[in-house]
Amino acid sequence: MVDVGEKPATRREARATGEITMSAAALRVIRSGTVAKGDPLQTARLAGIMAAKQTAALIPLCHPLALTHVSVDLTPTRRGYRIESRVRTTGPTGVEMEALTAVSVASCVVSRRSSTCS
Amino acid sequence: MVDVGEKPATRREARATGEITMSAAALRVIRSGTVAKGDPLQTARLAGIMAAKQTAALIPLCHPLALTHVSVDLTPTRRGYRIESRVRTTGPTGVEMEALTAVSVASCVVSRRSSTCS
Amino acid sequence: MVDVGEKPATRREARATGEITMSAAALRVIRSGTVAKGDPLQTARLAGIMAAKQTAALIPLCHPLALTHVSVDLTPTRRGYRIESRVRTTGPTGVEMEALTAVSVASCVVSRRSSTCS
Amino acid sequence: MVDVGEKPATRREARATGEITMSAAALRVIRSGTVAKGDPLQTARLAGIMAAKQTAALIPLCHPLALTHVSVDLTPTRRGYRIESRVRTTGPTGVEMEALTAVSVASCVVSRRSSTCS
Amino acid sequence: MVDVGEKPATRREARATGEITMSAAALRVIRSGTVAKGDPLQTARLAGIMAAKQTAALIPLCHPLALTHVSVDLTPTRRGYRIESRVRTTGPTGVEMEALTAVSVASCVVSRRSSTCS
Amino acid sequence: MVDVGEKPATRREARATGEITMSAAALRVIRSGTVAKGDPLQTARLAGIMAAKQTAALIPLCHPLALTHVSVDLTPTRRGYRIESRVRTTGPTGVEMEALTAVSVASCVVSRRSSTCS
Repeated sequence: MVDVGEKPATRREARATGEITMSAAALRVIRSGTVAKGDPLQTARLAGIMAAKQTAALIPLCHPLALTHVSVDLTPTRRGYRIESRVRTTGPTGVEMEALTAVSVASCVVSRRSSTCS
Repeated sequence: MVDVGEKPATRREARATGEITMSAAALRVIRSGTVAKGDPLQTARLAGIMAAKQTAALIPLCHPLALTHVSVDLTPTRRGYRIESRVRTTGPTGVEMEALTAVSVASCVVSRRSSTCS
Repeated sequence: MVDVGEKPATRREARATGEITMSAAALRVIRSGTVAKGDPLQTARLAGIMAAKQTAALIPLCHPLALTHVSVDLTPTRRGYRIESRVRTTGPTGVEMEALTAVSVASCVVSRRSSTCS
Repeated sequence: MVDVGEKPATRREARATGEITMSAAALRVIRSGTVAKGDPLQTARLAGIMAAKQTAALIPLCHPLALTHVSVDLTPTRRGYRIESRVRTTGPTGVEMEALTAVSVASCVVSRRSSTCS
Repeated sequence: MVDVGEKPATRREARATGEITMSAAALRVIRSGTVAKGDPLQTARLAGIMAAKQTAALIPLCHPLALTHVSVDLTPTRRGYRIESRVRTTGPTGVEMEALTAVSVASCVVSRRSSTCS
Repeated sequence: MVDVGEKPATRREARATGEITMSAAALRVIRSGTVAKGDPLQTARLAGIMAAKQTAALIPLCHPLALTHVSVDLTPTRRGYRIESRVRTTGPTGVEMEALTAVSVASCVVSRRSSTCS
């Protein structure tokens, strides 16, 4: 882990975006709100936020940081969803990996909910 | 997660309390110190402290915080125990949820030890 | 941890319930669906499900179990919500603690969302 | 979480693949083996394997499963790396999400090591 | 992670032992039962048990296993404590690493309590 | 958990060392670089770094700290390896336990890779 002890604690923000496409059938199920057991977009959003907080436990050389803000938003596109995360901290190093991890995990959740697996 | 980046880092403390009641038989076992494998009150205390440190991983929209102090105390009541947690941090947001999580998990441990399940 | 190695793996289910009451004002906010950033009941439901899976990491003497099902449901009462969890496994010991942990954490989430803390 | 308690425990395998592209400069650094502090491909491989084991903690509605095998392999392409995971279990449900999570996290690690962030 | 999918699930047990020595002064404090905030031996015992359950999250190539029993015992020696763990599972691979992890973490706790650090 | 809220946040560093000995045969396998599936020393190094970040989750009374640096180095000795960790933070309490945890887990990994267990 790079030594960031000499760097001043400053306000930092990172954003990451991803795009997930799915079949028209899967998209219809999500958009009709008929997925059994809750809204998959809300599940993806929460999973992404929680994953951002686990970044230092998942990415071996990432520093543990006291995040001051995490948001994950999903906006519909023609063939799926655009996922955008925004992460902020006041600390000695950036939160790019936290933003990226949030998008990755949120994408996994959406793709799962649009598939047929349990 | 609410953005707390603009809030100053100040000293904060939260307390939470809970009360657990149990059968006279269960209470006798605990108070006689004859629970196989150690004192359930000490187990509950430690589990509560460790749970407070896991709050941000359990409660989706809680901020990760560098806790400076956590204590959990169990005091006997007529029909069970009163559980009190005290959590402190120097940070931009409060530790109410950490205190509540500590009490919740400590309560689970005591109720478990006073039941017959394994 | 009690030795459950001699016990056969059988299908097991546990349910736990809790009830949370809140101020009329807090209740109105939740029921009007105007909580900023998503439905607190859905958040509570997911947090409870994820917490059930963390039970062995939270409760010192609980066995790690391959849960086959977890559900958490919140139903409105006159002054708040009734929370019910249902957990199933095919294993050598019961899932009472998993059900209880799910309800405890879901309750924490609802109480948080109905409070004014961040 | 879908109830999989009725499903028989069978041998299951899932594979997932991803592809990461990077600048020629970043690629040269990785391929020359001159990254300070160890081989980023090995780091990515291990992070992916460990992430597969955390899938049920990251993806809200995934079942905890006793994985019997996880591998993550990175093979060079013209402009980056192809990442392939393979996950196996003997259980009542598939390991598609575990395979996907492994690839996602391994990708994050490689992209991080090829960037300039700390 | 080695593929253990072909191996039959059998009952397995592993034991590990460690020995920790400390200054006469530190030993006196522990044995007099005057450590502020609870018995360090009980804390070490519980931490060791909980660590055994985290083995697959700590040791990159260890398989997640449904442990059926974990115990950690500390017995006084002339200059400190002997720590012994015993771990059991019914599974396709052994629990040597789980037993070793339990002893390692329990040792860390005892050594911490016998030092002057916070 | 001792209250460290009154202590100033200062730069702190801790080092810990351990030594692991193994059979000549095991040593030959590691040094020849013929261990199937990657370099065990690199695995040990990463596992130690990740474990340092998990210290507060493993050691009940340790404070969660924002580590600014963690390194783990393994150097060959005549009969095995010397493992040295170095951990830094800017915080109100020391990182001795983090350094010790890193060495302990790295040792477990090396000993595992030098044994015949899976």
